Amino acid sequence: MPSDLEIARAVRLRPIDDVAAKIGIPESALFTYGRYMAKIEPNFLSGLEGRPNGKLILVTAVSPTRAGEGKTTTTIGLADALNRIGKKCVVCVREPSLGPCFGMKGGATGGGFAQVAPRDAINLHFTGDFHAIVSAHNLLAAMIDNHTYWGNGLALDQRRVIWRRALDMNDRALRQTVVGLGGAANGYPREDGFDIAAASEVMAAFCLANDLPDLAGRLDRMVVGHVRAKSPVTAGDLKATGAMTAMLRDALKPNLVQTLEGSPVLMHGGPFANIAHGCNSVVATKAALKLSDYTVTEAGFGADLGAEKFFDIKCRQAGLRPAAAVVVATVRALKMQGGVAKDALARENLTALRAG
Amino acid sequence: MPSDLEIARAVRLRPIDDVAAKIGIPESALFTYGRYMAKIEPNFLSGLEGRPNGKLILVTAVSPTRAGEGKTTTTIGLADALNRIGKKCVVCVREPSLGPCFGMKGGATGGGFAQVAPRDAINLHFTGDFHAIVSAHNLLAAMIDNHTYWGNGLALDQRRVIWRRALDMNDRALRQTVVGLGGAANGYPREDGFDIAAASEVMAAFCLANDLPDLAGRLDRMVVGHVRAKSPVTAGDLKATGAMTAMLRDALKPNLVQTLEGSPVLMHGGPFANIAHGCNSVVATKAALKLSDYTVTEAGFGADLGAEKFFDIKCRQAGLRPAAAVVVATVRALKMQGGVAKDALARENLTALRAG
Amino acid sequence: MPSDLEIARAVRLRPIDDVAAKIGIPESALFTYGRYMAKIEPNFLSGLEGRPNGKLILVTAVSPTRAGEGKTTTTIGLADALNRIGKKCVVCVREPSLGPCFGMKGGATGGGFAQVAPRDAINLHFTGDFHAIVSAHNLLAAMIDNHTYWGNGLALDQRRVIWRRALDMNDRALRQTVVGLGGAANGYPREDGFDIAAASEVMAAFCLANDLPDLAGRLDRMVVGHVRAKSPVTAGDLKATGAMTAMLRDALKPNLVQTLEGSPVLMHGGPFANIAHGCNSVVATKAALKLSDYTVTEAGFGADLGAEKFFDIKCRQAGLRPAAAVVVATVRALKMQGGVAKDALARENLTALRAG
Amino acid sequence: MPSDLEIARAVRLRPIDDVAAKIGIPESALFTYGRYMAKIEPNFLSGLEGRPNGKLILVTAVSPTRAGEGKTTTTIGLADALNRIGKKCVVCVREPSLGPCFGMKGGATGGGFAQVAPRDAINLHFTGDFHAIVSAHNLLAAMIDNHTYWGNGLALDQRRVIWRRALDMNDRALRQTVVGLGGAANGYPREDGFDIAAASEVMAAFCLANDLPDLAGRLDRMVVGHVRAKSPVTAGDLKATGAMTAMLRDALKPNLVQTLEGSPVLMHGGPFANIAHGCNSVVATKAALKLSDYTVTEAGFGADLGAEKFFDIKCRQAGLRPAAAVVVATVRALKMQGGVAKDALARENLTALRAG
Repeated sequence: MPSDLEIARAVRLRPIDDVAAKIGIPESALFTYGRYMAKIEPNFLSGLEGRPNGKLILVTAVSPTRAGEGKTTTTIGLADALNRIGKKCVVCVREPSLGPCFGMKGGATGGGFAQVAPRDAINLHFTGDFHAIVSAHNLLAAMIDNHTYWGNGLALDQRRVIWRRALDMNDRALRQTVVGLGGAANGYPREDGFDIAAASEVMAAFCLANDLPDLAGRLDRMVVGHVRAKSPVTAGDLKATGAMTAMLRDALKPNLVQTLEGSPVLMHGGPFANIAHGCNSVVATKAALKLSDYTVTEAGFGADLGAEKFFDIKCRQAGLRPAAAVVVATVRALKMQGGVAKDALARENLTALRAG
Repeated sequence: MPSDLEIARAVRLRPIDDVAAKIGIPESALFTYGRYMAKIEPNFLSGLEGRPNGKLILVTAVSPTRAGEGKTTTTIGLADALNRIGKKCVVCVREPSLGPCFGMKGGATGGGFAQVAPRDAINLHFTGDFHAIVSAHNLLAAMIDNHTYWGNGLALDQRRVIWRRALDMNDRALRQTVVGLGGAANGYPREDGFDIAAASEVMAAFCLANDLPDLAGRLDRMVVGHVRAKSPVTAGDLKATGAMTAMLRDALKPNLVQTLEGSPVLMHGGPFANIAHGCNSVVATKAALKLSDYTVTEAGFGADLGAEKFFDIKCRQAGLRPAAAVVVATVRALKMQGGVAKDALARENLTALRAG
Repeated sequence: MPSDLEIARAVRLRPIDDVAAKIGIPESALFTYGRYMAKIEPNFLSGLEGRPNGKLILVTAVSPTRAGEGKTTTTIGLADALNRIGKKCVVCVREPSLGPCFGMKGGATGGGFAQVAPRDAINLHFTGDFHAIVSAHNLLAAMIDNHTYWGNGLALDQRRVIWRRALDMNDRALRQTVVGLGGAANGYPREDGFDIAAASEVMAAFCLANDLPDLAGRLDRMVVGHVRAKSPVTAGDLKATGAMTAMLRDALKPNLVQTLEGSPVLMHGGPFANIAHGCNSVVATKAALKLSDYTVTEAGFGADLGAEKFFDIKCRQAGLRPAAAVVVATVRALKMQGGVAKDALARENLTALRAG
Repeated sequence: MPSDLEIARAVRLRPIDDVAAKIGIPESALFTYGRYMAKIEPNFLSGLEGRPNGKLILVTAVSPTRAGEGKTTTTIGLADALNRIGKKCVVCVREPSLGPCFGMKGGATGGGFAQVAPRDAINLHFTGDFHAIVSAHNLLAAMIDNHTYWGNGLALDQRRVIWRRALDMNDRALRQTVVGLGGAANGYPREDGFDIAAASEVMAAFCLANDLPDLAGRLDRMVVGHVRAKSPVTAGDLKATGAMTAMLRDALKPNLVQTLEGSPVLMHGGPFANIAHGCNSVVATKAALKLSDYTVTEAGFGADLGAEKFFDIKCRQAGLRPAAAVVVATVRALKMQGGVAKDALARENLTALRAG
């Protein structure tokens, strides 16, 4: 059996213009990143508003196990199948974080014959969205300390700053830090720490925003800390929103890539499912609904967490109405739920399967 | 008089394929970022090796002043002029840092009618080179702390780690920090700090490398700290080079943009001139010499620092032989050197000019 | 009604030799601190071993309230009364901490006509016991960091050092600190903090020790941290016990003072009742039992905590058998337990009293 | 040749009352610490003001070497000799720090037949002066952080607090710290550090004060930090002086001990000579001048530093007029100055001696 990498390399991808054309996106609406990746321009997308929406299908799963369950491959396979039988179908998934990619978890581009391509580019810097989100996040952090340094007009209490910094890197040494050391020229010492990009509140706001002005409003309202008397201070109070939004303008355009079978994939945004809502961007999902008959999307973690967040947070905020939900329940995952150790999953075990 | 922004917006840029074609780069050798930016593929560049080099012209200046001297505008203007009189001329300059861009210094895309475009994209994320360099830098930092966390086989002394972290942000609170706090799960506490991207040693190595294998070798030899007995530990010892090089592979391809008059510009790499050597990448300069009759390039700071570093470090390491050097000496800068305050530079002052 | 201070100043204290003589301690067995305080030499005390013990009476109380319950005044009053009716009675209480003394809690020398004297000296440095304990505690801390600095032969894991530092001061800024900063010459950075003297494990060991060799053994066994593989490192492993014991040699001699009525008081040791066992030293209690018919002692906090610790920890470790226990239950405390606010305690409230 | 310890143990010390009586101090003016140590009450000392002063002799030395020079033994020997020939002579020296005592430097009680006794008690806690000074020092530190915690009415800038903490311990890990960590309840994080007791500014003020009110005034004026606009904040501004003075009241009484030959020694205060003025307290020196014909005192380090500070700082501030100065220049020290290594000093080397 060939490896994921071998399978991916054996496929000749279609030019991204062709993939776009299949769902009616003209070349002029693309901002390309080489031959196989592009962002879709927002003025094209805003022109689609009058169109009816396609149907929205959510892929979720039983409670997650360390062996994985197969949500992403099911999502991709389902879309490829719908496209093969002649339906116009678009996949909507999250883009991967660099952090876990160099850690244990591996990429988020699927596996086997159900992969999103170009896999290496996507797993590294892709179109720079995570870098833009991290930059906007850290710009706000720098503006907080800059504000207290230059007189602290808002009387922000250094002990009550809750806005941490962010990096797209798994780096345990940065989880808890003290910053502002080295004397008066470096500002006021305070306890701080770094979150991974996928855990940034900017990422969450980015993925729930309908468009750039909506994103600006969400950034405006983010609480960065409190004054001594406990009232909140926001990014808007610090006048940070303009610069942050400028940094995120290009990133907010949804990314178009393809499956190995050429199905269009909107891969955009990547918030964690445990601490954020764990779905791709609202901008991408709304675009897909206008551009296709069927939009197949995925929610992180199992049905008990990720699907709940998808329905309760993303759908309510964005006014989405899912038409169907697929619950992935592999035999492997069920056996693991039934108590089988990870390295014994390959063996048949009907008792454990039933228990799971 | 129109502002820099108004001038830039009034110009209709040429498609980057056209700019490339003028110096013989086929469309197949470009990795585009939208319509006006592209990276040049290394396999095309390596095919040029047999060609003779054009002439290399360095633009430097008198000792720098806070009012600026005009090196970048002179560089661009000279190239535009050479192109107008029918010579094939390429500009080689550094790409700007996000940090100073949101700070006081402003962008690095020139001014007036001598600008590099597209200005906004260049001044923000451009083609992601700085993000890639920061990611590679911080990956090494994370691997250092990870190494000590998992048993510290190399016996690296936490007190003697000299590899700091990096961000493309002016952030005084991060200059001096303590990391690894929060208990045993977060590793060993140690004193640390963040440098701006332009000050990263990865940036310096990146800009001096001839190609990807040469870069890998330079990364390999970088010293990250010392053991108790003072012997050095390198990035190579930590087996960090492979992943770092993978992260930098795309970034090392030189970026092609244009002046407002359509002259080709290779804008690539951006080390500080005070702590590093302050010139654009060797990869870009070597490519320009093969693709043009005249390559006009610039060295940061004045002739006493930047030009010296250009000649002594970059030229020696890369085997370059400059044909001419231009020393910019504006009346404003000379007056300031002669003791005139910044806000009085507009007035005539021959005594100060002579003193300067 | 005169204040505590006025009452105390109106009393003419007896020379400490006279107080000692009443319970058979010769002048040669005293190490005096001025006229009214003395330590009792251990060679005299060890000569008493053959004598029978007097009876041990514990004073405890209902659950503590912020208004206090009156354990100390009851203890003193009971002893004064027993002495007045011709019994030979000695009081055993804890010496006060400087920390809470300058904080809100006030001294620990009783009140009204039931006070221990000389009050000011006792509430300040007294005979230096707390200083000696803090010094021994911090000597061990310094030896820990010194050990890791000079090669760390025991492979102590800096992240797993659990021995904090100590000060006889209420100082919230020292509760959580990072030490060892400032470069290699200052050792390895680590998370640390300061406990108040009464919370020091040295204080607990000091108060449970039968004599100097027993104390040395207890110090020897104190765990200061763990190696990477989790096995413990003790003060004995660091060879710290000798110097620590030398520092504590004089402090371990019990202090003799008096009540305002001239009853002998052994005031010695002062561990907190919440985190330690909350009773005066075993050395003092054992001496009192040999020197008197009745020893009245006190346990911190209420019967549910302090008395339990007294019976379960101190009595078991020291082989003591209490003859009686007095439970203090003031009307004020009962009313507060019954729900009355502190500033309304002066008013009659039988319902609350019954509920309490 | 017997060791210092053997010599000291062979001598039977006189009761401190007898030593006091020799220079006219009645028993009622003594606050004793056991049989051989006492403090002299200030009301007795203030009654001596009308008396003429004896003569003041300073013992200093050539530039200090690591082998020592013998200032203390010369001081003691000179006093013993003067007393033997019938003059009334008192020694005034510094009391030793616990820190260096457990470090390399050894005690400060002299050596050979020229020792101050009781040596062990002096080298450990003595009469608690250093503990009192450290407590007063740290009380001020706690009041600083307490002040900023409770609203910071004085607008003290946390980055500009210059009052560090103090411990009577050589502890390199405490040289540079960050305090106030652990969240809002522990105050504002800031950079801090601990000085050794002998380096505390309280020690310096203590040793230069004429009496308690003078000390209170000196404490009042001590600068603890600055506000944002750079104006100073003093201990007086923080209302810390009252409590600090209370803590130092007993410590300021000079300590009376004796040489092995029974000469009276006032051993009081112990500031370092490198960073402070390096002499015993003014209170002790002034008392000695009233109580004797000759007061022999010592200044830390060599004539170029310690004696200069003695003349320029202590004598000017206290209005003292030395009658003579002795410069110690041992053959060993001169040989070392002449270039001989420490372990070769025992051999004759006239060339080096001459060079020294």
